[in-house]
This record gives sequence, C-alpha cells and structure tokens, in this order.
Amino acid sequence: MINKSKTFAVAGGDLRQIYVAQGLAAEGHNVRIFGFDNYSNNIAGIEICSDIESLLADADYVVFPLPYSTDGVHLNTPYLSYSVRLCDIYEKIRTSMTVFGGRFSSRELNSRGIKTIDYFEREELQILNAVPTAEGAVYIAMQERPYTVCGSKCLVVGYGRIGKVLSSLLKGLNASVTVSARRFEDLASIRSMGIMPIKTKNIEQTAGEYDIIFNTVPAMVLDKSVLSSVKKNALIVDLASKPGGVDFNEAKALGLNVVWSLSLPGKVAPVSAGQFIKDTIVNIIEQEEGL
Amino acid sequence: MINKSKTFAVAGGDLRQIYVAQGLAAEGHNVRIFGFDNYSNNIAGIEICSDIESLLADADYVVFPLPYSTDGVHLNTPYLSYSVRLCDIYEKIRTSMTVFGGRFSSRELNSRGIKTIDYFEREELQILNAVPTAEGAVYIAMQERPYTVCGSKCLVVGYGRIGKVLSSLLKGLNASVTVSARRFEDLASIRSMGIMPIKTKNIEQTAGEYDIIFNTVPAMVLDKSVLSSVKKNALIVDLASKPGGVDFNEAKALGLNVVWSLSLPGKVAPVSAGQFIKDTIVNIIEQEEGL
Amino acid sequence: MINKSKTFAVAGGDLRQIYVAQGLAAEGHNVRIFGFDNYSNNIAGIEICSDIESLLADADYVVFPLPYSTDGVHLNTPYLSYSVRLCDIYEKIRTSMTVFGGRFSSRELNSRGIKTIDYFEREELQILNAVPTAEGAVYIAMQERPYTVCGSKCLVVGYGRIGKVLSSLLKGLNASVTVSARRFEDLASIRSMGIMPIKTKNIEQTAGEYDIIFNTVPAMVLDKSVLSSVKKNALIVDLASKPGGVDFNEAKALGLNVVWSLSLPGKVAPVSAGQFIKDTIVNIIEQEEGL
Amino acid sequence: MINKSKTFAVAGGDLRQIYVAQGLAAEGHNVRIFGFDNYSNNIAGIEICSDIESLLADADYVVFPLPYSTDGVHLNTPYLSYSVRLCDIYEKIRTSMTVFGGRFSSRELNSRGIKTIDYFEREELQILNAVPTAEGAVYIAMQERPYTVCGSKCLVVGYGRIGKVLSSLLKGLNASVTVSARRFEDLASIRSMGIMPIKTKNIEQTAGEYDIIFNTVPAMVLDKSVLSSVKKNALIVDLASKPGGVDFNEAKALGLNVVWSLSLPGKVAPVSAGQFIKDTIVNIIEQEEGL
Repeated sequence: MINKSKTFAVAGGDLRQIYVAQGLAAEGHNVRIFGFDNYSNNIAGIEICSDIESLLADADYVVFPLPYSTDGVHLNTPYLSYSVRLCDIYEKIRTSMTVFGGRFSSRELNSRGIKTIDYFEREELQILNAVPTAEGAVYIAMQERPYTVCGSKCLVVGYGRIGKVLSSLLKGLNASVTVSARRFEDLASIRSMGIMPIKTKNIEQTAGEYDIIFNTVPAMVLDKSVLSSVKKNALIVDLASKPGGVDFNEAKALGLNVVWSLSLPGKVAPVSAGQFIKDTIVNIIEQEEGL
Repeated sequence: MINKSKTFAVAGGDLRQIYVAQGLAAEGHNVRIFGFDNYSNNIAGIEICSDIESLLADADYVVFPLPYSTDGVHLNTPYLSYSVRLCDIYEKIRTSMTVFGGRFSSRELNSRGIKTIDYFEREELQILNAVPTAEGAVYIAMQERPYTVCGSKCLVVGYGRIGKVLSSLLKGLNASVTVSARRFEDLASIRSMGIMPIKTKNIEQTAGEYDIIFNTVPAMVLDKSVLSSVKKNALIVDLASKPGGVDFNEAKALGLNVVWSLSLPGKVAPVSAGQFIKDTIVNIIEQEEGL
Repeated sequence: MINKSKTFAVAGGDLRQIYVAQGLAAEGHNVRIFGFDNYSNNIAGIEICSDIESLLADADYVVFPLPYSTDGVHLNTPYLSYSVRLCDIYEKIRTSMTVFGGRFSSRELNSRGIKTIDYFEREELQILNAVPTAEGAVYIAMQERPYTVCGSKCLVVGYGRIGKVLSSLLKGLNASVTVSARRFEDLASIRSMGIMPIKTKNIEQTAGEYDIIFNTVPAMVLDKSVLSSVKKNALIVDLASKPGGVDFNEAKALGLNVVWSLSLPGKVAPVSAGQFIKDTIVNIIEQEEGL
Repeated sequence: MINKSKTFAVAGGDLRQIYVAQGLAAEGHNVRIFGFDNYSNNIAGIEICSDIESLLADADYVVFPLPYSTDGVHLNTPYLSYSVRLCDIYEKIRTSMTVFGGRFSSRELNSRGIKTIDYFEREELQILNAVPTAEGAVYIAMQERPYTVCGSKCLVVGYGRIGKVLSSLLKGLNASVTVSARRFEDLASIRSMGIMPIKTKNIEQTAGEYDIIFNTVPAMVLDKSVLSSVKKNALIVDLASKPGGVDFNEAKALGLNVVWSLSLPGKVAPVSAGQFIKDTIVNIIEQEEGL
C-alpha cells in the first residue's frame, strides 16, 4: 500500500486496464481513465476523460497498457473507435510524472528526464501471471481431450515460473505428472515437491507414454525425433513465447494435435491479470519511495 | 477382469458406447457393435454389424447405452441415420443373454426370464462419474469468470459424491473452499479433509462472500432469500439433477449468472465415461459369477 | 451452539476432559469439574469441585470421560489419587439430568428414567478422531523409519474413516499411496480421489513393493501368506481396534517391524480430542432440543 | 548414472556413509569402506578395509563424510573406536584421485594437484535435504503439541529451499499456512502456490495468531518485539543454521517453547540423506566427465 493518495492517468488497453484503474481507486487514489468508448462507471475515485489534456492534468503517474503499443506509433487502444499517436501523448507528459507501461520504454521521454518503467519486466508480475497461464493450460487440456485430467499422464517441459505452478495444479487435479528440466538443482526441486523428474535430454525415451505434453521452454525441445515418439492421440500445449518449443511443421506432418497458447492471462482471467499489474505498479512505487 | 472370453453385443448410443466396446475388446472379449453409420474400425476383436440379427447371434451379453432410450420406444441411436424399435430388438434376445442398459429396465424381458441390469444404478459408476462432473464444473468456472480459480472463494453445496471430488479439486487449484452439509457426520468429514464446513441452513449468512457457488443437492437450497444475498458478479453452477437446487426465475430476476449443467461426463470426457461404464459392467459380471 | 446457558458436571478422565470443560465454558456454559488432584484454573465459568454433591448440584448435564470406566465399577479417574465408585455417583444423579459418557451405558440409570448417551458412538466423533489417528500414524512412520515419507511406497488397508484421511495426508506428504478395499464402490472412491486402488484380496501380489503398510481393518488381512511377501525392512502400523488385522506371531517370526497403535487421538492430540468430544456433546444437545 | 565402473574409497562418517557406499555399489561401482568397527556386509561390490592403505589402493574417488572432520585434525569417525589423522590419509592420496567431502576443502591436497570437491555446497543436495528437514519440522510439531497439525495456524518465516517444501507439506496436512518473505517476487511465488503471503517486516502485526512458527531464516527475525506478541502456548521451531533467527534469551524469559533443530536430515532420515549424497556425487562426476 502506498501511504499517500496519488493521481494516476490510466490510458488505453483492454479490460485489464479497467481493473488496474479500479484497483488503484479502491486503494484510495485518484484515477483518471481514457481509451474506452463505452466505459461508464460509478466507482468513487475514477474520472472518465475524453481527451489527453484532462487525462494528464496534475497526474503523478501515467499507466500505459500491456503492451503499450502494437505498432510502436500509436497507443494500444482496442476499445477506442479512433487511434491516438504516442507522440501526441508524450509531448503532454511532464517531468514530474513517472510513466508505466507493459513492454515499454521511451528514449524520447527519458531524454527529457522523465522516468519510464516497464512493469512487465518485474519478476513478481511474471510469477503472478504464471497462475492464469497454468489455469489456461488446464482449460485447454479439458477442452481438447475427451478424457478426464484425473489419471492423465502429463509431461511438463521446464520447471520455471509456469512449470512450477502448472505441475502443482495438475497434481492437484490428480493427473500423473512428470516434469523435465536440464539443471541438477531443478531436478532436485521437482523431486522435493513429490513430482517425477526427468532430464530434458532424455524426453525422447519416455515421450510415447504421455497423454498431454505442456511445453514451457522457448527452445526447440519437441523436435522431430521427440515428436515421432509421441502418441497419436496425445495433446501438445505450447506455452512458450516465440519461437515456442515445438517443431510445428513436423507435428503437422505427424498429425499431432498442437495448441499454441500465448498471452493466456489477458484471455482467461483479465480481471486477475489487471489486479496483478496494479499490484506490481504499487510495489514499484513503494520500493521507489523506500516505503 | 472376467477370466473367460465372452461375446458382447453393444447396441446404439454415443461415443461412450464405442469406448465400452473398445475396452471390452482390449480385455480379450469378442465384441459386436451396431448403431454407428460411419464407424469403421481395425481393432482386433470388434465386429461391426449392420443388423440386429448378426449383432445378437450367440451373444452372452447385450449392452444398451446410457440412456438406453429417450422415448421409451426406440433405442437411443444418435449416430444412426434411422430409428430402431426396442421391441424389434427385444424379440431377438434369448434367455441365455443378460442385458445391460443405462436407466434401463424391461418388464417385457424379465417376464420372459431374461435378466436385465441397470448399470447406471451402480454406486461405483456414480462415484467414477463424479470426476468428469467435477472437472466439468471447474471448466465452466474457468470459462465463465474473468478471474483465476486460484484465490476464488467457492461454496460447494452438498458433500455427496460430487461434492467430495469437486471440493478436493478446487482445493488442488488453490481456491478458498467452503462446503455446506446438513448432517453432523458430513460436517465432520468436511472438517477432517481440511475444508471449511458450514451448515446448509446457515448458507444465507455467508452467501454474499462467495465468488462461485456450486450446487450438488437436488433440493431448493438456493432459494429467493439465499440468492438475494449473493454477489452480483458471482457465478452459480447447478450440478444437481432435476429439479436442480436453484430458483432460476428468482436468479434471473436478480440478474445472476446461473449455469445449469447436466450429464457432464458424456460431454466433457466421453472416453473416460465410456471406460467407467465398461469397468462397471465387468464388475457386475465378476460379482454375478462370484469371481 | 446451544442457545441457552446450561450447567455441566464434568467428572473424571484425562486431559481431554479438561478441554471438554474449557470448551463448554468458552461457549458460555457453567461448568463444574471433578477428578483432578492438581487442577487449578482461572477460567471464567469453571468451578472446581472436591466432591460429587457439589459437582452434581443443579447440573443439567453430566459428562463422563472416554472410557467412562476401565473396570465397570469405578469412574475412570487417572488424575485423581483415590477411586470413586460409579454407584456412588449414580445415586446422586437426578431425572432432570442427561448423562454423557464414552463407551457408556447404564441400565441402572435408564431404569430410573435417566437418559444416557454414549457420545463415542456418534459418527461425527469417530470421523473427527480419524484426523489425530492418521497424524499419529504418520508420526510413527517418521519415528520408525530412517527414510523420508516423501517417496515412500505406502499401502493403506481399508478405506473407512481412517483410511480416507490417512491416504489423503500421505499424498499431501508426497508418499506414493495405494489403498486397498473390498467393495467396488470403495475402489471407485479411491480412484476418484486420484489414489491407486487395489482389491484387498489381491494384496499378496504386491505386498513386497511397500515400504510402509498401514492397516485400518479389524480383520485378519495381513496373514501369514501376505506377511511372507513383505519386505524385511518394511514397517507395519496396525491402527485397527482389537483384534487388529496383523498376525503378530507370524510377523514376529519373520522379524518384521510391527507397531500396534491404539487410541492415538488421546495420546497425540489430547486437546483436539477433547474439543471433538465437546463439539459432539453440543451437537447431540442441539439435535435433542431440535435447534 | 556414470557409464564406466569406478572404484570408490568411502572413509568414516555415520550411517549416511554406509548408504553412500551401498548406493554406489548398487550402481555397479567397486566400493571400499573404512571407518566402522562393527560393519559387516554381504553386499556385492563392497569391500571392508581395516586400514587406509587397502582403502585407497587404486581408488578413483575418495569420499569423506559430512562433515569430513569435527576438529580439522582427525577424520570424522563416530563409529570407529580409534581416531585417524587427516594428514595420515592425505599423504596416501595420489594425484589420479578426486576427493569428495562435506564442508570440505584441503589446500594441502590442492597444492599437490589433487582435486577436492565439497559436495555439501551443491545446490541439489541442499534442495534434497530440504525434504527430511521439513518432515523433521513436522515431526517436532506433532511431538511437542497436544493438537492436530490439521487446522493449526502456522507461520513459516522465509521462502527459500526449506520454506518452499515445509509450507507445501503443512498445506498437505491441512494446516492453515502463512509464509513470510521480504522480496516481492517471493511474495508473488507464495501467492502463486495458493499460500497466504506476508511481508517479513509485518510479522509482528499477526504474530499473535499463530499456533506454530517455523523459522528458516538465519537472521534475527523473531526478536523481542515479535516474540512478545506470540501466544504463550505457541510452538517455535528454529530450522535456521547458526546463529538462528530467534532471540532465545527473550523467548526463555517469556516462557515460550522454542525448539532449535539443526542437521535434521542425518537425524530423521539417514538412509535418504545418504542416498542424496550419493546422487550428488554421481551428478558431479557425470558433469565433470561431460556425460
């Protein structure tokens, strides 16, 4: 919690931005919001703005969405009927403001002495996002397969943020879970959580046993030789960011069912994802102010 | 496992029947199947029949689907382009056969000295079906809500077969779980599994706290007075068989999101559901034969 | 909760009785206690009595311990330096009182029109006691074996009250858990909770795989032929009431480590066990009074 | 697994060293063991030596115990009736050998070109040891408290290797678990695993709620001001290595029950702890040899 009430200018984005705004207002801050044609609210502390001037007036913080832009030129405003150029916003931002954004940086603002922060780079946001990502992966498995998850033999490739949460959820749903990793300490961690570990380089040997394979590693792990061992009715869910970890052409040639799932948090749980962004921004401000 | 190889006539039904047939064949039995226009298989032990005569020839057991009929007159054959009257099948069934079916009984067959068994009445099938039902309920919760299940406050009304499995899965997904029951021993069981118990008659007092309410009790538990306490953005999932346990008119008037979900096993996990039916039929035969 | 404040005479017993008394006082009742040489308290609502007359004066309920007597003649008073005959107490009990006791009945009192209730026969108490019993079993396994429970192969014989909780705790500690049962519906329940089921009659086939075998069934399941298959360094914990389910002579001859553990709740968690008795007595009164 | 059979000289130590030796022999290596007066074995591949010469003859690897010495002068040999000086062993070690030991280093050996490795510094051993440490902590909680762990309010201070496993086990035993951490990413990790997070600096505010407090942080977290808020009948288990994290004098003055538990793996699960050391040594050799 930030002790003093501040003024936030929340600009653009999808549903998550609305929950960022609501979350900040709920903690007692003044919030201005811009970028939603049809947003009307009666939440105390939120003011809807129709132009950049009124949005930025006396703001302490500006909050751009995740991602802040899809073309590098305009603000990402999927819920607005017209486009807004970033440069038109930037010129109205003053040096007293700190600017937050997802996958965001601006040499232009920095060169004018304005602080910019990419909240998407914060470790805690990535960790919190692992939960909706893992739930989304479970959802896909339920949707795609005519079997119960209970009793399904699952392989999770990688024991990073997503692998940790996903393997725990699958265990909680009574799947039979194996997790692969390369490093000895990760293999030990997997074992210490009561999960079957396997070395990533040995996946090929057991690939034919799994009903569902979830990849979380952004490297070509599920290559031709591994894929050729996979059961024909298995499901492969690739959760790794580009370039992913599955040889899609090979998988297609083999007739395997591969689902490539990116950006699950905003899709499966936009409210939670918005709250996580809000929490992260508050953490950053706390830390900056030495609270 | 039944020790001796037997001959099964599998008639009608949806995908589940195919998995009944495949499961029986995998255990070494001779299986004849009828009722699927486009079913072609190369599974050893399964013979596709195009008429009732060849289906029933020298069969030891006849297996009707779940439900065996939707109108009481015809066999339930959703995957067949024409209708087959039950009486036309019945007249070809001989006294040496035992006839299985879901929600099935036939005074006609019984009066001719032919044994009929409703496998859907078996407790173990109901218990096994609780797993896909509970997974289906989780799936609906993920689909309907823009929040993670993790951290959601859930109420499960009733601690019968479904309530037991569902509360365990929700716990495994890190939801905050409360279960209501009427009987003191059920309340003790809930507590012994580390879950928060509440008396069903007291639900109204806490109804406003929950994000998701799952009803498993076929009695009007979520009546007007309870519903009026429920949060506007809460989700209600009614898993109870008719007449259900939610006052739908009242819920609608209050603008609450209610999903009424029946027969989830066949929808969310037809293969598993078919295997459960197969397992149950095998259990019954084992038991009958004193194995 | 009982709505009106009542007066309870708590007589004899071990530490559990003290927690029964404290629990009743905490719910606003007047409590008199007798049977502890050195008990002095400053808990509001509890009065220490040194004789039966003052204990019983104007009491609504009398609470005997679990068990109420060890010889059928005297009250069970392990913390009192002298003995008190039951008949001397009975003659002072009036028809307005209801008498609770563990493993208790009294034709003498009943013939005088006084109601007696054996709280130990209540299903909810047995269920609640399954928790300290299961924890005690885990404790014994940790104490007796030089291995972690994590990764140990465990067999739980029986899926009744104790089997349900114990298998769940072992799973929570990341042991590899198999549960045996005889009935098809219990085998289905085990499977529905994500645990490996095995038919009790087939235990012999896999008995050699287990590191720890917990018996919960009061019937000779672990007989000579099963025991002869058990690993020499395995641990057997018998939790079943007399006559237990292990052939002790045979186990001894085979050099197996068998721990026979009875009455664990009072030993491992006397405070919790006392609270469970208190909760059960309150439930009974609620029910009797139609609350 | 190391592909080629090697010769290991296992010297001194407690029971864990015997399981190191047995584990290596079980993987097909030649093992010589020294340091146990009464050890006699009939395990293929293990040779018992009565002097250093025969122990070291043609060894590829020397394995000292954990810790390798308690005084820096003699080998740690608790099961040997006489003392052996390290220098007398060192002078017989040849440059072809690699020497493993716990908390071990030897400038003397290194200066002669002999490689020494402290296996206790390996991350995977520390992680694997977190399991017996966490189980030992649960054991202490069961031993010290007259309550079930189920339902107990537990605080785990710190979310490192031990905090992660311990909080997961406590959850598996149905305790109510809160974990404290300082870093935002650890707080997010705790939340992502469905556990209640709290900032370590805020412990004082809620310290009075907990039944059991487990400290895993080797810094004075449970200081005077925190301890003064703790419930009188709470249990404090300090698992942190020296200097620990509890103000013992203050705790004593307040009459609190503090158990300081060090080196639990060797105490509660020596066989598992020995296997972990063996696994780690094998990992190191694999890695060194680029397997």
